[in-house]
Amino acid sequence: MKNISILGSTGSIGKQTLEIVREHSDIFNVVALSTNKNCNLLLEQIDEFQPEIAVATDAEDAAWLKLHAKARTKIYSGMDGLVAAASLSSADVVLNALVGSIGLVPSCKVVEAGKTLALANKESLVVGGELIMNIAKKHEVDVLPVDSEHSAIFQCLRGENRNSLTSVILTASGGPFRNLSKKEIESSHPSKALKHPNWSMGQKITVDSATMMNKGLEVIEAKWLFGLKAEQIKVLVHPESIIHSMVEFSDTSVIAQLGLPDMRVPIQFALTYPERICLTTNKLDLASISKLNFEKVDTDRFPNLQLAFDAMEKGGTMPCVLNTANEKLVPLYIEGAVSFYQMTEIINKTMSLHQAFNYTSIQELQEIETWVKRQISEYI
Amino acid sequence: MKNISILGSTGSIGKQTLEIVREHSDIFNVVALSTNKNCNLLLEQIDEFQPEIAVATDAEDAAWLKLHAKARTKIYSGMDGLVAAASLSSADVVLNALVGSIGLVPSCKVVEAGKTLALANKESLVVGGELIMNIAKKHEVDVLPVDSEHSAIFQCLRGENRNSLTSVILTASGGPFRNLSKKEIESSHPSKALKHPNWSMGQKITVDSATMMNKGLEVIEAKWLFGLKAEQIKVLVHPESIIHSMVEFSDTSVIAQLGLPDMRVPIQFALTYPERICLTTNKLDLASISKLNFEKVDTDRFPNLQLAFDAMEKGGTMPCVLNTANEKLVPLYIEGAVSFYQMTEIINKTMSLHQAFNYTSIQELQEIETWVKRQISEYI
Repeated sequence: MKNISILGSTGSIGKQTLEIVREHSDIFNVVALSTNKNCNLLLEQIDEFQPEIAVATDAEDAAWLKLHAKARTKIYSGMDGLVAAASLSSADVVLNALVGSIGLVPSCKVVEAGKTLALANKESLVVGGELIMNIAKKHEVDVLPVDSEHSAIFQCLRGENRNSLTSVILTASGGPFRNLSKKEIESSHPSKALKHPNWSMGQKITVDSATMMNKGLEVIEAKWLFGLKAEQIKVLVHPESIIHSMVEFSDTSVIAQLGLPDMRVPIQFALTYPERICLTTNKLDLASISKLNFEKVDTDRFPNLQLAFDAMEKGGTMPCVLNTANEKLVPLYIEGAVSFYQMTEIINKTMSLHQAFNYTSIQELQEIETWVKRQISEYI
Repeated sequence: MKNISILGSTGSIGKQTLEIVREHSDIFNVVALSTNKNCNLLLEQIDEFQPEIAVATDAEDAAWLKLHAKARTKIYSGMDGLVAAASLSSADVVLNALVGSIGLVPSCKVVEAGKTLALANKESLVVGGELIMNIAKKHEVDVLPVDSEHSAIFQCLRGENRNSLTSVILTASGGPFRNLSKKEIESSHPSKALKHPNWSMGQKITVDSATMMNKGLEVIEAKWLFGLKAEQIKVLVHPESIIHSMVEFSDTSVIAQLGLPDMRVPIQFALTYPERICLTTNKLDLASISKLNFEKVDTDRFPNLQLAFDAMEKGGTMPCVLNTANEKLVPLYIEGAVSFYQMTEIINKTMSLHQAFNYTSIQELQEIETWVKRQISEYI
C-alpha cells in the first residue's frame, strides 16, 4: 500500500492521478489533496478518498470546506497547508501537480522530508533545480518525472550506464501554431493558443505549448533531472506526440519511449516505480497511425524556446527570471493585454536587465520573482 | 581485454566485427577466425589479426592456408574446426555469424563451454532453440543477439521486469517486393530479390527478406531468446528500418530502439555488453529523415511469414522442417529452378508431411534435415 499526497488534485494531472488510484485502490491510498480554486470538486474528492488532510489556497474556501466535508479530513489553507501536505508523515509519495513556481517551496519540503517526489510541476526545477536536486541527493530520495517527455527519458535510461549517454532528444508537438507564419501567429486570437492538437491540459501549459516556452521549461527541467550539460539537450518537432522523447548513447543507439498521448501512463509509472502495473487504456497501433513526422525546431517563429536555452546557459537565477516573466505574461496574453511576440520581447528585456548569480536560498529566488513582477507591471 | 572467436569472419557480419576490433584493438583480441569459401580474405585476416586458430570448411582450402599463412595460427577444417573455434579455451565471447543451420552444433558447443554466445546465426535458435537455451541456462551463460531486431528488443528490455512485458514488435522493412502485387512478385527476376532497400547483407538473408521468411525466422528466434509465447510476438512493416524493434509493457508504454541501418551497432553492443562504447559512424537525424512509415504485414503476399508462425505454434521439430526446406530452396530460387511462391508451396507441403515431436538431441534434428532435403530433391 502506497500513501499518496496530491498537490493540485483538482487540475488535469490531479484528476487523472485519482482515476489511477480509483482503479488500483488495493495498492494506493490518498492521504492529502489540494486545490487552488475548485472547492466543489475538492469536496467531492474529500468525500470519496477521505484523506488525512486537504488544502485550499484561499482561507475562506478552507472555511467553507470545513463546514461541508463529511470525512474526518483536516482542512488547511495557503502555503502552510501545501507544506503540511508536502511533508505529511504518512505520505510515501508526494505528487506535485501545482501550476507555476508556487510549487517550488512544496517540492523542497517533500525532498527535505525524505519522501519520493513525483514531479508534474516543472517550474519547481526550472526556478530552483539546483536547490531541489541537492536536497534530494543529500536525503537520498527519488525525484520522479511526471511530464510525458521526462518520464520517457527516465524510462529510456533504465538499466543504462549514464556515462554512455550522449544526448537527450525532447520531442515537441509544435503546438497549435506549428504551421503558421510569424504574421499569422501574431494575429491569431489567444483562444487558438488554447487548443492543443494532441494533449488535453490546463490553460497555462497549453499557452506555453503554443509559444514553445513549455518545451524550453522542459529543457531546463531535463538539465536538472538528468544532470545534463546544455549541449546534451536537443528538441525535435514531432507533431503526432507518439514518441514522447528519446535518448542517444555513445554507440549511436537511440532508445525512445512511445505511446498514445495519455498522461496516465507517466503518472502511473511515477507512482508504481520501479514496477509497472496494468493500465486499462488504448494501446499504440503504429500501423493504424501509419506515419510519424519530424521537423527541425524553428526558433525564429518560436523565440521563447531560444530564450529558455539562453537562460539555461546563463544559469543561476536567470531561469527564475525567465519563468516568472512568462508566468506573469501568459494570463495577460490570454486576456489580450499582450501579443504573442510581445511576450518574447518583455521576457527578453527583463532577462537583459538581470545579472544572473548563484542563489543559495528560496528567499533570493522569491525576491527576484517580486522584482520581475514589478518590472512587468511597469511595462504593461 | 576480451578474446573473441569469430565463426564466419569473411561474411558481412564477420567483416564488420573485424572493423570494430580494428577500431578498438585496446580492448578486443581475435583468437579464432573461420570461412566457408573465401580463403583469400581469411588469409589476409590471419595475417592481420594473428588468431590462435583459423578454420576453412574445405580440407583443401585448409591445406592451402597452412602453406600461405605467415602467422603462427593453427589451421583446421570442417565441423571439427568450427567446434574447436566454438570452444577455444582462451575465447571469452564467440560470435556465431555462420549462415544456415550449420551454425547449430557450434552454438551448442559455445554455451556448453560456458562462453558468451553472440548470435548472428538465427537458424541455430530456429532449429534448436530449446536445446541451446537449456544448455545456456544450465551453464549460466548469456546468449546475446546480434540481429538488429533482437538487439533492439534486448536493449529495450534493459532494467525492466520481464513480468511486465506484454509483447515484442519486430519491425520489417518489407523487403524489395513490399509494393508489388502477387503477380508482380511471382514474375520478378530473382536478381530483384537480391537488392535489399536498406541493408547490405549476404545472399541467403537478402532473399529471406524478400520472402519475409527472414522475419519469420526472427519471430522464432525471439521466442527462444526472450522466452515468449507465440501471441506475444508481432510483426510491423516499417520501410525505413529506423526503428529496429519495440517492446510493449502492461502499462501500454512502448520502448523502441532506433538508429541508422548499421550492423556495427548491434555487433558492438554484443561485444561490449553490458557497457556501451563509442562507435564512429553517422548519427540518427530524424528531422532530416522527416517521416517514418508503418504498415500491417500482408501474409497473403508474403505467406512464408505465416508458415513460420505456423511452425512456431506446432513447435518441437517443425521449425527445423521449415528452416531446412527454406535453406534448400533459396539457392534453387536464386538460380531460377523454383519460383517465389513455389518455395511457399514446397515448404508448406513438406511441413504437412511431418508430424512435429519434441526432440532431445541434435542427431534427431539432423535426421529431419536429411529427410527434408531428400523430400525436396524429389519434388524438383
